[in-house]
Amino acid sequence: MTPAQRPIPADRLHDPSSRGFASDNYAGIHPEVLAALASANEGHQVAYGEDVYTERLQAVMRQHFGDAAITYPVFNGTGANVVALQSLTTRWEAVICAETAHINADEGGAPETMGGLKLLTVPTPDGKLTPELVDRQAWGYGDEHRAQPAVVSITQSTELGTRYSPDEVAALAAHAHERGMTLHLDGARIANAAAGLDLPLRTFTTDVGVDVVSFGGTKNGLLAAEAVVVLNPDAVTGPVYLRKTSMQLASKMRFFSSQMLALIDGDLWLRSAQHANAMAQRLEAAVRQVPGVEVTQPVQANAVFAVLPPEVTARLQKRFRFYTWDTHTGEVRWMCAFDTTEHDIDTFAAAIAEEMAL
Amino acid sequence: MTPAQRPIPADRLHDPSSRGFASDNYAGIHPEVLAALASANEGHQVAYGEDVYTERLQAVMRQHFGDAAITYPVFNGTGANVVALQSLTTRWEAVICAETAHINADEGGAPETMGGLKLLTVPTPDGKLTPELVDRQAWGYGDEHRAQPAVVSITQSTELGTRYSPDEVAALAAHAHERGMTLHLDGARIANAAAGLDLPLRTFTTDVGVDVVSFGGTKNGLLAAEAVVVLNPDAVTGPVYLRKTSMQLASKMRFFSSQMLALIDGDLWLRSAQHANAMAQRLEAAVRQVPGVEVTQPVQANAVFAVLPPEVTARLQKRFRFYTWDTHTGEVRWMCAFDTTEHDIDTFAAAIAEEMAL
Amino acid sequence: MTPAQRPIPADRLHDPSSRGFASDNYAGIHPEVLAALASANEGHQVAYGEDVYTERLQAVMRQHFGDAAITYPVFNGTGANVVALQSLTTRWEAVICAETAHINADEGGAPETMGGLKLLTVPTPDGKLTPELVDRQAWGYGDEHRAQPAVVSITQSTELGTRYSPDEVAALAAHAHERGMTLHLDGARIANAAAGLDLPLRTFTTDVGVDVVSFGGTKNGLLAAEAVVVLNPDAVTGPVYLRKTSMQLASKMRFFSSQMLALIDGDLWLRSAQHANAMAQRLEAAVRQVPGVEVTQPVQANAVFAVLPPEVTARLQKRFRFYTWDTHTGEVRWMCAFDTTEHDIDTFAAAIAEEMAL
Amino acid sequence: MTPAQRPIPADRLHDPSSRGFASDNYAGIHPEVLAALASANEGHQVAYGEDVYTERLQAVMRQHFGDAAITYPVFNGTGANVVALQSLTTRWEAVICAETAHINADEGGAPETMGGLKLLTVPTPDGKLTPELVDRQAWGYGDEHRAQPAVVSITQSTELGTRYSPDEVAALAAHAHERGMTLHLDGARIANAAAGLDLPLRTFTTDVGVDVVSFGGTKNGLLAAEAVVVLNPDAVTGPVYLRKTSMQLASKMRFFSSQMLALIDGDLWLRSAQHANAMAQRLEAAVRQVPGVEVTQPVQANAVFAVLPPEVTARLQKRFRFYTWDTHTGEVRWMCAFDTTEHDIDTFAAAIAEEMAL
Repeated sequence: MTPAQRPIPADRLHDPSSRGFASDNYAGIHPEVLAALASANEGHQVAYGEDVYTERLQAVMRQHFGDAAITYPVFNGTGANVVALQSLTTRWEAVICAETAHINADEGGAPETMGGLKLLTVPTPDGKLTPELVDRQAWGYGDEHRAQPAVVSITQSTELGTRYSPDEVAALAAHAHERGMTLHLDGARIANAAAGLDLPLRTFTTDVGVDVVSFGGTKNGLLAAEAVVVLNPDAVTGPVYLRKTSMQLASKMRFFSSQMLALIDGDLWLRSAQHANAMAQRLEAAVRQVPGVEVTQPVQANAVFAVLPPEVTARLQKRFRFYTWDTHTGEVRWMCAFDTTEHDIDTFAAAIAEEMAL
Repeated sequence: MTPAQRPIPADRLHDPSSRGFASDNYAGIHPEVLAALASANEGHQVAYGEDVYTERLQAVMRQHFGDAAITYPVFNGTGANVVALQSLTTRWEAVICAETAHINADEGGAPETMGGLKLLTVPTPDGKLTPELVDRQAWGYGDEHRAQPAVVSITQSTELGTRYSPDEVAALAAHAHERGMTLHLDGARIANAAAGLDLPLRTFTTDVGVDVVSFGGTKNGLLAAEAVVVLNPDAVTGPVYLRKTSMQLASKMRFFSSQMLALIDGDLWLRSAQHANAMAQRLEAAVRQVPGVEVTQPVQANAVFAVLPPEVTARLQKRFRFYTWDTHTGEVRWMCAFDTTEHDIDTFAAAIAEEMAL
Repeated sequence: MTPAQRPIPADRLHDPSSRGFASDNYAGIHPEVLAALASANEGHQVAYGEDVYTERLQAVMRQHFGDAAITYPVFNGTGANVVALQSLTTRWEAVICAETAHINADEGGAPETMGGLKLLTVPTPDGKLTPELVDRQAWGYGDEHRAQPAVVSITQSTELGTRYSPDEVAALAAHAHERGMTLHLDGARIANAAAGLDLPLRTFTTDVGVDVVSFGGTKNGLLAAEAVVVLNPDAVTGPVYLRKTSMQLASKMRFFSSQMLALIDGDLWLRSAQHANAMAQRLEAAVRQVPGVEVTQPVQANAVFAVLPPEVTARLQKRFRFYTWDTHTGEVRWMCAFDTTEHDIDTFAAAIAEEMAL
Repeated sequence: MTPAQRPIPADRLHDPSSRGFASDNYAGIHPEVLAALASANEGHQVAYGEDVYTERLQAVMRQHFGDAAITYPVFNGTGANVVALQSLTTRWEAVICAETAHINADEGGAPETMGGLKLLTVPTPDGKLTPELVDRQAWGYGDEHRAQPAVVSITQSTELGTRYSPDEVAALAAHAHERGMTLHLDGARIANAAAGLDLPLRTFTTDVGVDVVSFGGTKNGLLAAEAVVVLNPDAVTGPVYLRKTSMQLASKMRFFSSQMLALIDGDLWLRSAQHANAMAQRLEAAVRQVPGVEVTQPVQANAVFAVLPPEVTARLQKRFRFYTWDTHTGEVRWMCAFDTTEHDIDTFAAAIAEEMAL
């Protein structure tokens, strides 16, 4: 019996045992996070961030990212990115990013429409920028006919499941800074990168020159909470105001900070990410045994990209949820989450093998 | 022993028994809402709104607002308003509102900066627009030198704790529609208005010509959830896209819809609002007995506005949290929430009397 | 025979002898300006401002406004204002102005829609701000719920034909600077103000603390040319980029600079403004003799505001072009231009007397 | 004696006999246009477009573009494009264009910053889109995570001096319309395209499905005037308002319309463009004889693109003004204008040969 065929419990609208490989944001809330919400509940707390949970969050984030770090909790990843990028730019500046960057490909044009930001994009093989790729767009300084490149934005781990080494980030930061630009890191899956690197968060951010991080929580087991973490306060202007104008200021902030605390005041962030990554590794190992399945990207976080025959994909998608990434090439994406089980992987890998064999 | 002096429980960062009168968003999450989050948890659900909880929410909202209603859950009130107003306007149109409207006074300029919207404001005695007040700004049609007035936006209950009768809303809707405008209702405290009127939600919205409602949940016991409820789909364009570009699209939408369901799929919304309103009535009744305290607005929802001597306010604010509304006049605002108790009111009223008597 | 009844010359589409009192921008190009265009013509010049005419303009403007002045020619007044105000603000800041200010009343919402600027308006009796009026909006610093007031914008001469004395501007500048704000002066009719004051331009701008001027030329006999004149370069960021993004950068800049040079490299600006002002004085003197005509504003520049019976206005408007300013009060506006003649005034004043006597 | 060495006439700031190959906007005003300004001068005309010259312009443009055409004169090309594209889009829509398109490469980010528009760019070999190239970006309809592709924007003649045939435009229009998109044509050099094609304007615009044209005048001998010409009024909303909010509404409109009339109410537009194109052909023919000079694009309008050794370019640029197009490849751009003479071409070609031979 496949998950889709199981009956829904009487007290639920959905089947709590059903899981797929579509996205880590199809998963729910980690139980420890739900408990933290309850713990932060009851009584009154000052709204809009002057509460004790947000105060505590500042301190904990500084443990992870260094003493200069200032944290601004926001609602979602698009919000974090648009607030961060606005705080790093004037009205006439531009952002260099990979074509596949979430800010370019998946935010509905919010950076342009809401932030007035021009994105200067570069095609990449693996979702990663390099100093050479940055230079394809880092020019025209002083020429008012060209939106002035002011920020390099990278994603860690990338939208293609790959990740930057600390040295790679350092090279990009140095390159950006030499040209008067800043470095933004979209860390919607920063925990998966840290887990994959087996390094503390600051080793590939603060310590190597990243100026601002969009710190992701939602894809790692929160209900909804991300944060703009300013590592270099000299690089930004007005994040507190931009969070408000960008409609990202929660009134009952304590519940966003307490979610985040549940994640990072302790090792839940790391445990969950390590698990999701391990599940992706397990899946990759399994499908590499299946003739005809081509894994297309290094599996360095919690995603597996592979090319399958379209008819196999079609049959599999009737049994399990996942997305086709590129309809031209037949590439698909399989995401693992904090709650993906070894049994889920083994069942899915078996199904892949089965469908490939038909 | 005042709340501020009580010890904080060992397993908490805050004192869960401390409450004040600063704002209904200082309160936490209603226990039934927290239970709903747990119930919607576990397993995977499609992200971004194609989940069963959001589907159910659509149906329940239609029970409240009529068969044409379409509901777009968002994160917060500013987001709801900016999405709603953008969906009702082109790039060159303007919104008529009271000077005290939240969109004008409390959103950091988000409507202008993010929506590109010009607000045409009118001073009012009580936070309420009338057809006559609307006409002070509803002119200049066809003249490109004037941002074209396209929407009338009212708040129900208002920022001053007053409310519109169905007839008053009907008159505004008719007036707006005659001039080719639409009517938006900022319902951050719509439940308090309904409770005060003792009428179903649709009687002062759908049935009298409101086109779009910003439906508030956060101030009525949710963690964070509001909704753009389109009552007249012909009046809007692109709310689904505008929610995304406005950074208001939650990935794990099920948890926003399930909060909202906990509120309105049943009578929690009404019970909580009735209680908060009753606490405001109790407070008003008590302070009316105190010589020297002048209540300045009719108490028609969950707020009491009053004028006190500044030195009394200063002493009281050392004991209880509340805001000075107008430093020139000495007017203060006392808000009641779903969790305000009769004991809270009585203690506070006694303190007011005590400080006034010094 | 009234102007409207004269035949149009065979080589023209319009009657070059017809003039009215609708606006100073109904007038054409001063002959000296047309000659300057011809003089700057032929041969090639570097586009976008690196030409010798623009270089010369910089020097001449510094003679008028002091050695720090930097001049950015633009196309029109709305463009000058929106570029100037953007250069004085971040994305989350706001501008304090009179309700009657051109930026609020006549620019179609361009400051909001294009600049993302919130305007904090104040009603005034005469179009003029005072420190006290500024303070009605200069508050809320540090509170992200309020767009941060960053600029005071005044118009000189005002939209109501009144003007500020140097002392009045100095008081506003000091007041603005004390609060961390800057002072912008919309000088669409700055020449009329200078002529009325009988003072050099810098005495009521640079010397008393104005930070940026929108310098008007079009209403004073140019085809089309205005300039953002930065008096305090420390107060602005990026005007050169903002001019481009605001679509105000002329490719054949030499012709905009040469128009401006024709005006201010010599005394054409002053002669023309003195003449227009004198015509307004002559008109005021004449209509003050007409029983029943009430002049409503001091005549301090080139405009006369008066209240007439509506039926008289209606009859007069069939004979001469002018605008009703306020349909409620019956107030009308009569503008004089560089090409208004004494005969025009006398004919018009006689007609007013005649229609009033019916 | 090279132009740069000639003395400047006593009554001028510049040498009227000096010309180069940098850009057609380095040239001045055609004498017939200057005469037209004088003819439209004197007397009063209603401002902002209700004048007889603008009325006449509407009629003449309809002769060129068909009875449905509505013309909105504006100041410059960036303004024309941003007004046109806004009128064709909602807040959440996007524009598909070539990477080399002026809107992407040369407008300082104005479409994004001012229009809130996302540009979806495609690399091209020759500056021209094809249906296949459009399809690289024309997808994602209905998915709010992707800015919705709503307009295809092409440039005719292109930024690379190439041009579309009527059939090529027709194919793009059909392709765009099939997908629910519209077709915008940036005609900053539309006259050069028409001259090169030897076809009336409407044959490659109105007759083949273009919805809106940015009609260029400045590069073809005007002081400054372009126009948004709406060919399909059903495709646009609010151009009259968007022109104002985009700061492109001239008060003394008669002078912009009369410039445009001087160009197109007669054959000046065609004569000037034919001449400029012929000069480019003459230059191409000459340099093709020079060993080592590689012409890189078909010469189909008034530009010649060629690759030269960098040291030759450096020496030539000391003698004549022109731009390096691509510093990596050594490609240069030579533009001809309405006032380029055969002698200019022959002198320049001889200099190229001379420097190449060193």
